[in-house]
Amino acid sequence: MAHPADVSALVELFDSGLPARDVLCVLGKTEGNGCVNDFTRGYATLAVKLALAERLGVTPDEVGRRVALIMSGGTEGVLAPHFLVFGRIAEGAPRPGVKALAIGCAFTRDFRPEELGRRAQIEATAEAVRGAMAEAAIDGPEDVHFVQIKCPLLTAGRMAEAAARGASVAVEETYASMGLSRGASALGVALALGEIASAPGDAAVCRDFSLYSTRASTSAGVELLRNEVMVLGNSAAWGGELAIVHDVMADAIDAGAFGRALASAGLDARDPASRRRVVALLAKAEPARSGRIRDERHVMLDDSDINATRHARAAVGGVLAGALGATRIYVSGGAEHQGPEGGGPLALILRRA
Amino acid sequence: MAHPADVSALVELFDSGLPARDVLCVLGKTEGNGCVNDFTRGYATLAVKLALAERLGVTPDEVGRRVALIMSGGTEGVLAPHFLVFGRIAEGAPRPGVKALAIGCAFTRDFRPEELGRRAQIEATAEAVRGAMAEAAIDGPEDVHFVQIKCPLLTAGRMAEAAARGASVAVEETYASMGLSRGASALGVALALGEIASAPGDAAVCRDFSLYSTRASTSAGVELLRNEVMVLGNSAAWGGELAIVHDVMADAIDAGAFGRALASAGLDARDPASRRRVVALLAKAEPARSGRIRDERHVMLDDSDINATRHARAAVGGVLAGALGATRIYVSGGAEHQGPEGGGPLALILRRA
Amino acid sequence: MAHPADVSALVELFDSGLPARDVLCVLGKTEGNGCVNDFTRGYATLAVKLALAERLGVTPDEVGRRVALIMSGGTEGVLAPHFLVFGRIAEGAPRPGVKALAIGCAFTRDFRPEELGRRAQIEATAEAVRGAMAEAAIDGPEDVHFVQIKCPLLTAGRMAEAAARGASVAVEETYASMGLSRGASALGVALALGEIASAPGDAAVCRDFSLYSTRASTSAGVELLRNEVMVLGNSAAWGGELAIVHDVMADAIDAGAFGRALASAGLDARDPASRRRVVALLAKAEPARSGRIRDERHVMLDDSDINATRHARAAVGGVLAGALGATRIYVSGGAEHQGPEGGGPLALILRRA
Amino acid sequence: MAHPADVSALVELFDSGLPARDVLCVLGKTEGNGCVNDFTRGYATLAVKLALAERLGVTPDEVGRRVALIMSGGTEGVLAPHFLVFGRIAEGAPRPGVKALAIGCAFTRDFRPEELGRRAQIEATAEAVRGAMAEAAIDGPEDVHFVQIKCPLLTAGRMAEAAARGASVAVEETYASMGLSRGASALGVALALGEIASAPGDAAVCRDFSLYSTRASTSAGVELLRNEVMVLGNSAAWGGELAIVHDVMADAIDAGAFGRALASAGLDARDPASRRRVVALLAKAEPARSGRIRDERHVMLDDSDINATRHARAAVGGVLAGALGATRIYVSGGAEHQGPEGGGPLALILRRA
Repeated sequence: MAHPADVSALVELFDSGLPARDVLCVLGKTEGNGCVNDFTRGYATLAVKLALAERLGVTPDEVGRRVALIMSGGTEGVLAPHFLVFGRIAEGAPRPGVKALAIGCAFTRDFRPEELGRRAQIEATAEAVRGAMAEAAIDGPEDVHFVQIKCPLLTAGRMAEAAARGASVAVEETYASMGLSRGASALGVALALGEIASAPGDAAVCRDFSLYSTRASTSAGVELLRNEVMVLGNSAAWGGELAIVHDVMADAIDAGAFGRALASAGLDARDPASRRRVVALLAKAEPARSGRIRDERHVMLDDSDINATRHARAAVGGVLAGALGATRIYVSGGAEHQGPEGGGPLALILRRA
Repeated sequence: MAHPADVSALVELFDSGLPARDVLCVLGKTEGNGCVNDFTRGYATLAVKLALAERLGVTPDEVGRRVALIMSGGTEGVLAPHFLVFGRIAEGAPRPGVKALAIGCAFTRDFRPEELGRRAQIEATAEAVRGAMAEAAIDGPEDVHFVQIKCPLLTAGRMAEAAARGASVAVEETYASMGLSRGASALGVALALGEIASAPGDAAVCRDFSLYSTRASTSAGVELLRNEVMVLGNSAAWGGELAIVHDVMADAIDAGAFGRALASAGLDARDPASRRRVVALLAKAEPARSGRIRDERHVMLDDSDINATRHARAAVGGVLAGALGATRIYVSGGAEHQGPEGGGPLALILRRA
Repeated sequence: MAHPADVSALVELFDSGLPARDVLCVLGKTEGNGCVNDFTRGYATLAVKLALAERLGVTPDEVGRRVALIMSGGTEGVLAPHFLVFGRIAEGAPRPGVKALAIGCAFTRDFRPEELGRRAQIEATAEAVRGAMAEAAIDGPEDVHFVQIKCPLLTAGRMAEAAARGASVAVEETYASMGLSRGASALGVALALGEIASAPGDAAVCRDFSLYSTRASTSAGVELLRNEVMVLGNSAAWGGELAIVHDVMADAIDAGAFGRALASAGLDARDPASRRRVVALLAKAEPARSGRIRDERHVMLDDSDINATRHARAAVGGVLAGALGATRIYVSGGAEHQGPEGGGPLALILRRA
Repeated sequence: MAHPADVSALVELFDSGLPARDVLCVLGKTEGNGCVNDFTRGYATLAVKLALAERLGVTPDEVGRRVALIMSGGTEGVLAPHFLVFGRIAEGAPRPGVKALAIGCAFTRDFRPEELGRRAQIEATAEAVRGAMAEAAIDGPEDVHFVQIKCPLLTAGRMAEAAARGASVAVEETYASMGLSRGASALGVALALGEIASAPGDAAVCRDFSLYSTRASTSAGVELLRNEVMVLGNSAAWGGELAIVHDVMADAIDAGAFGRALASAGLDARDPASRRRVVALLAKAEPARSGRIRDERHVMLDDSDINATRHARAAVGGVLAGALGATRIYVSGGAEHQGPEGGGPLALILRRA
């Protein structure tokens, strides 16, 4: 996209035959700061809604109810702003013995403010992940490779409503509630995928970072009250030429995760033909809270001029662009309980042959 | 270093036996913004001067005359702030048939303001590079792998002095003069190393980017009027366990340059033992002026919140840290005529066996 | 507005009786960085277009043709994001001997790329200003108090088109072309208002800052090829309870300009009742190119972390908010030839009694 | 100062007769970001120490023990970087019935980590303020007009030491500990000056902002373990041509505080001769936590590109520079319990006649 509201490529997709009604989800990497006052997310969301509304003959609001629109701000360094459009189209029958890329969506109920960032959110999220897996006909956790979640946050109004009922919320700052909601949502994925044995207590959220999912990618938004879940995996019930694999970056410079993920599909990161089969690369990035990477100091957390998440996206974007040899990469910040402390999940959508 | 003025590691080096009088050059990567108001460079320079002055029993000013102190600001993303200390110590006799890391220094005469960013600076720089090569007993251009230059810039005062004499300078903005001085200095290296056949005219400086050196790294500073040149190469006249190699990043995500440089020394980037032999990695970074990397858009030049050079260092730092598996990397911005447009030189100092 | 796309107050205006078809212009102060990648301007423009389109029963594009939508980014410091809605409504007959706020709009022809930032743009702009004055029935230059202009800029495509015809443009960088276009437009206002005797040559634009208008406020945008001019003045042909006055800030801290402007309407800045009659305050801000304000150094031009225009808006916003006692102030950056070097025009729309 | 380490004006002061041994305190406004990674404070401190050490014939460390060096980062907008040098010189005998500017310094004991940001720090600070008043021969609280305090913060090491003893600290993040230490120190001033009746409990610190001092200005630094207190007031025991007054800004745009402070000395803010008698203006600035100023929204707390304290200094600097007509103003951020929420103390040092 040439700017956040540039939906010309999406319109071209429709013109070239993709039915707008088959679009399930649009994941966007927009060029704002990815932090509190990043309005490129809202701007892109509005532009995509208008484009879909015109094609579907419905209102923009109705589009918002039908299609998951998830915009992640921040294309620091070499990263290219782009949309990833996920659709379910009626071509390509399943081939026996071959699992293909499968998508499933599900929602939790609306959360009460006092549930956010706590066990209640973890458990409801896990249930929704299981529901999305079932909807996608994904057999089991080992076939799930990426779970994208959009989750709510606490606003002054929601906190006041809880207080009026005598309920106490997990934290009283809006910004901190975003981390807690992302963290609890990621723990919900970990629970559904068996990465943790049971739902941890409230106190573990954003505290005990030894608990994490290797496949969760969560982002918080003010416009919803429930968790919206998109599961990406492989399923024998699906056809098409795509499949998905994943691995985990142990830290911010673990370029090897890219090679390991490719290798899990029998491909070789040193082979350009293998790399060209990567249709999308999705990853999470964060600055190590220890202030160190492999024993050397980093300054990301101490820089009052550039937000730490911007540093992290720029650097991890460089690590992965260097490995892949391309810059159209979805790197998103805010990785609480998403991969190990300082690292993060990485998924590749691959084209067969 | 724990902060820009932390010279404790340098003092430890002295305490553990390195004679302060053998120090030729200190190259620092400090944690400021690397742009106009980056005072971490001056702060680190002052701290290193004070530490050396105490050991040498001379004044801080005298240290500045004896030792080349070159500080490059900007440790965005994963990059670790650090000093590289270059010394010439009296151990390790040359081994027959083995070329080892050699260092040579030289200076040009002081430039008049109207010479900066022009052919006069190019030619004088080329002469100084040849002088430094001779001083280091480096046989020819093919044995030169990195040339670090500190060059002057135009200030209001220097421009006024030129104007009073009726001389006209290359540009009337201080900031723009830094780029021109860096560019002309790099072209001087290209000329000395035979990368260009003859000194280009004034008009080519910061215009014709098809002319460049694969081994120049230049930075401009207000505190000097001449070019200070440090040549790093390999020479049969030197002993010790170190050697240097180089390659060129074709663009900001050309991680392959690291592997090619290692391969030129018979090493393999995929082999951890090979990577552990890298003592220092030096590179230049810049955002492609085209606004594109391998056909995808980048936003570095359009971001009014983060200077483009900061984006570039963060990203290239990530690319190289991912390849090397470590973050103590010297990545410097402002790469006019230093490597191809959007790319840059890369050098590795290696420990034998 | 609660965010750049929050048009709820505008909708409320419509609901409370303002006919949408009477809206001539919406001036917005949005909360982006006011620089190259400020997408809050486009986002707000889209939101206002959608709101007006719904009321007018036309397409958003048609709204853009009918109504001048001018968004200025940057609400640094205490400044409050807000819209100023200018309309011409059918109430309040002129009162004999009383001049009331009058608005006139006009457009130049589309400019060819090589005309931008040059005498051709100056002269065409002057003609449009005279046209807008006539349309508003404003008698003479002394009754004009604020001229808001939106002007084009050079893009890569436009420059290529000119080059193909063998025409040479004023400057080859898009960002620099914005300043030249703003500057030439302001000189056009100065010419129309008799502030300069004749159209200066091309070389004076953004060079000879002794030439300026005390009433011009210009901003450049990529979406148009002509200058769009809105003249605000007082006219005996208009009714209503509003009037406009102006003065000039001699430098960035000239709070006295506010008092002088009020005094020109017989009001007293020290009197809260006088200050409460200010309906809108419009001003331009810029950092003095000399690097000094009343002989003391300022750092705005040397700060590579915060753009100089952001510093200037924050500071001038503080100066004027302190004088006015309120923060809903339209302070816009980029003041080439708009007021003296380092200062800028200031206009007040006042409610009578 | 031309840059953070430019002590030439200080050296000139010495050369023109100020004995270096009479310097009690240097207050600096340096041009860094005023936040975590602002190294201009340390750089300026080192430069001042070196200059004083040379004059006094002692080591730089010894200077640090004798003279209070307090650097506040951030000269956003129009603010001019500068040093304020406080000395006690042997000229100007007291005049009967005239109170003149008086300075007193005192220190608390070193604090244990678990005391910071709590009642223990409040009470010890109050005691030190009383001690400094006595040292300065200031009769009572009504003669105190500005209290500058430098206070410690919690580091990882200090927290670990406390934990090892089984002691629990007030907060576990270094950055948050700075606010708590500043807040408790300000409450100590309020207690000593009778602005609050008794020392509040630990829970009130940085929570109950209805408690505050109208004369405290506190800043936290890593280099000390105790509070260092400088009291500025008027005393009949002192001579000289200077006096000090104060008032309180009710919010960030309360320019009237300047006039009220002048009026308390019988001067008139509208009179240029009165304004020229202002030798120094000291103030604190902060963004209102409510997100609003006089009912209009501000964006300072939501801007992830510019730290809120930088916005606040730029804006309040503009408010006060507009009122004073000069830019050499000491505006410092981080105003917990220093003036009312969103406002802050303001003091003027005046030259008689």
